[in-house]
Amino acid sequence: MINVTVWNENRHEQIDDDVKKIYPNGIHNCIADFLRKETDITVRTATLNQPYHGLTDEVLNNTDVLLWWGHACHHEVSDDIAEKVFQRVLRGMGFISLHSSHFAKPFMKLMGTSCTLKWRDGDFERLWVVSPGHPIAEGIDEYVELEREEMYGEWFDIPTPDELVFLSWFSGGEVFRSGCCWNRGAGKVFYFRPGHEYNPTYHVPQIQKIIVNSIRWAAPKRILTALESPQILPSLEEKRKAAQG
Amino acid sequence: MINVTVWNENRHEQIDDDVKKIYPNGIHNCIADFLRKETDITVRTATLNQPYHGLTDEVLNNTDVLLWWGHACHHEVSDDIAEKVFQRVLRGMGFISLHSSHFAKPFMKLMGTSCTLKWRDGDFERLWVVSPGHPIAEGIDEYVELEREEMYGEWFDIPTPDELVFLSWFSGGEVFRSGCCWNRGAGKVFYFRPGHEYNPTYHVPQIQKIIVNSIRWAAPKRILTALESPQILPSLEEKRKAAQG
Amino acid sequence: MINVTVWNENRHEQIDDDVKKIYPNGIHNCIADFLRKETDITVRTATLNQPYHGLTDEVLNNTDVLLWWGHACHHEVSDDIAEKVFQRVLRGMGFISLHSSHFAKPFMKLMGTSCTLKWRDGDFERLWVVSPGHPIAEGIDEYVELEREEMYGEWFDIPTPDELVFLSWFSGGEVFRSGCCWNRGAGKVFYFRPGHEYNPTYHVPQIQKIIVNSIRWAAPKRILTALESPQILPSLEEKRKAAQG
Amino acid sequence: MINVTVWNENRHEQIDDDVKKIYPNGIHNCIADFLRKETDITVRTATLNQPYHGLTDEVLNNTDVLLWWGHACHHEVSDDIAEKVFQRVLRGMGFISLHSSHFAKPFMKLMGTSCTLKWRDGDFERLWVVSPGHPIAEGIDEYVELEREEMYGEWFDIPTPDELVFLSWFSGGEVFRSGCCWNRGAGKVFYFRPGHEYNPTYHVPQIQKIIVNSIRWAAPKRILTALESPQILPSLEEKRKAAQG
Repeated sequence: MINVTVWNENRHEQIDDDVKKIYPNGIHNCIADFLRKETDITVRTATLNQPYHGLTDEVLNNTDVLLWWGHACHHEVSDDIAEKVFQRVLRGMGFISLHSSHFAKPFMKLMGTSCTLKWRDGDFERLWVVSPGHPIAEGIDEYVELEREEMYGEWFDIPTPDELVFLSWFSGGEVFRSGCCWNRGAGKVFYFRPGHEYNPTYHVPQIQKIIVNSIRWAAPKRILTALESPQILPSLEEKRKAAQG
Repeated sequence: MINVTVWNENRHEQIDDDVKKIYPNGIHNCIADFLRKETDITVRTATLNQPYHGLTDEVLNNTDVLLWWGHACHHEVSDDIAEKVFQRVLRGMGFISLHSSHFAKPFMKLMGTSCTLKWRDGDFERLWVVSPGHPIAEGIDEYVELEREEMYGEWFDIPTPDELVFLSWFSGGEVFRSGCCWNRGAGKVFYFRPGHEYNPTYHVPQIQKIIVNSIRWAAPKRILTALESPQILPSLEEKRKAAQG
Repeated sequence: MINVTVWNENRHEQIDDDVKKIYPNGIHNCIADFLRKETDITVRTATLNQPYHGLTDEVLNNTDVLLWWGHACHHEVSDDIAEKVFQRVLRGMGFISLHSSHFAKPFMKLMGTSCTLKWRDGDFERLWVVSPGHPIAEGIDEYVELEREEMYGEWFDIPTPDELVFLSWFSGGEVFRSGCCWNRGAGKVFYFRPGHEYNPTYHVPQIQKIIVNSIRWAAPKRILTALESPQILPSLEEKRKAAQG
Repeated sequence: MINVTVWNENRHEQIDDDVKKIYPNGIHNCIADFLRKETDITVRTATLNQPYHGLTDEVLNNTDVLLWWGHACHHEVSDDIAEKVFQRVLRGMGFISLHSSHFAKPFMKLMGTSCTLKWRDGDFERLWVVSPGHPIAEGIDEYVELEREEMYGEWFDIPTPDELVFLSWFSGGEVFRSGCCWNRGAGKVFYFRPGHEYNPTYHVPQIQKIIVNSIRWAAPKRILTALESPQILPSLEEKRKAAQG
């Protein structure tokens, strides 16, 4: 069983009628709802306005994969919580960064780059599979079409992805590395571009399938305990002598 | 001084008036001409119809970087010459594979994949820089526009590039990894997509600049001699004893 | 259920008493035996001396992951069978290349390099985990010790691994990239160094665990059908017009 | 001409006679001295105790490649200066992180991992070349031997290097990824392990050669100006309409 926490800024949904219509219970609950259909996943949600943004030590220590959707309020996320998320990823927790979370604090800490990009609202998007054997692309056709999405364009200032799964084509003339995998510590990180709050992207079955796939891919194989203090090692010879008493 | 050999199939130019108009002396001579303007490069050319396709041992052994343009006659290249090119790359020679040379024998041997792709003639192309600090992108704006080019689309069945420098956007709805770098043995390989024979692509200054950059990037730092026979190594202890006499 | 075929050259076991003592039923059956303990794996074996080396189209088309152990007789493997294995990997079949199979025909075709290395018999080996979050390292301590193994040393002429899981330390002074992952086509390839025929390496539980892990990692998520012929694509506009009738 | 700044913590050299004997003018001046022999490099030095640690905006803005040696006083480096170094790297400045600078603030920011490792003082080290065609390995034999060095051992918690140039073997039983390259923003980063303050490592000609090579490799091809604010892009259609007036 994979323990998933879906984190959402959850602000647009409170103040903007257009967003409310698409995600009446918030983006986090839309995502949690389709995840709950999977028998190997248990889901909880957390939002910015909750104490500790809903990410207490207890929650983080029991999260295998954390999904993160933020947009306009990245700066309101406390540095302390961002650091805890970062440390938990290094120990093995999976981290799925959605859409405008390219600027989320934990994601930027994990990348070590500016994560800047270009953008424009209102393009037609084709999300091309460029790694058909990858677990995250399982069951996905050669591309997914999204009638209207926010364009994100290159140059996207990220470290070279360890694996590149999706490339986007936008009607206005841009391309984008939209599905990118990285290893950080013992944890796995996936950035997935689609999901503008004014478009019903998370209702699209193929998009849901990709997110489910990414959770299974990011689920930890082990959780490390000690990590930060460098360890002094006895040499092979010392070890053998000790073994002989 | 970098010794460059520009290899061209040189068949379309002989039989098709439309191609002849664009490249009256052949694609190889068009490329050789702009390379000759660089003071650190010396150029020769070679073509399919020449004995040994112009690639004798003497020529290969004196080539630092080999450019390759082939399209309709890949099967006419002898396996023997393809193997020699392959072996020379592993020893350090740079190899620049242009446009439809994704199906060239030496390139396919170096990749270990099918190198298949999708295509269509006649799109507008934008070639986006996705690695602005890369030596091959030096002096190139954020994108290069080509009014009409043959579309090559994903999925492009190549090994994950060690470095991805350019991504293409095509007006008809496709994306493509158009500038890809790999290390093979001690040699460097660059695949560069643009260059359809019916379009004047190699006359475009930005395209010429990219090719010149790629030659400097691919120029060998050393040429290996022995490569294939695995070597038996004395252990550190044996080596020390031998040193003590 | 993952359908595994274990292929073995099976020659040393026939002619050398020292090898026979360690692997009385052949290396392939030793491996098959511990794989059969896994409830999600079904196993068959195949050897060089069988017709088609045991790798008929029927066998290959029903193999999800192929393990390959060869050493002294790589040249006896027919080019035709090697090509079929290669093509099946590109379509999605996993390929686990063991020990001296760095020189096996299908592996070399997939790599596009010389796969040369250095060697010496009889070292103590420590196999260090350098990617603790990787599925292939699941359940493995920070290193595995092998009392006596054949040393393989760098430079190992392989393409940069997409993922590096194990690094070996040898008592005689060498290091080696001993657990390497690559993507080729839709298939996954894992090279795993240990397994000299004169050492009981495949009887070591941690080594068995790594091989089982690698099979689960390499099991295909999809099998491609068409692969080689480049496909002509209609443009987005043409596609939309066609849809409108 | 490549403008290099060599930064050093410069504390051990002030207080420890053993270190003073090896580096009487400080590690930074030892390095600066051998760099000054290169005709394409100009050098200045900077140390922790200077105002702004010697890294004023004027210095950073005129530095092409920054070398960094720190060990016991990483925490004394101001967050503000670390951030400025980080931002300058993303814009194109090369960054060479030496030995215990795996824990230096700018390096850790660039990596996005804990950078932890294992260690022990006093091993014999063999530094193996695993990428003989790489510019940083130019002119280096198959390995460099260091009679006594501090052991750094795996697991080294770093992102997968974009290029791996050196692997270390230590007499006590460990291996280490000792020469690692990454791209970050438009800048290049090289981590190079050797250089313990109690060993005369920076006096070794082969080590000096590697450092000089790494500077040439890391020298920027361009310096970006704007980086952080995502840019709104007009679509291709809007751009064309605007061009037509």
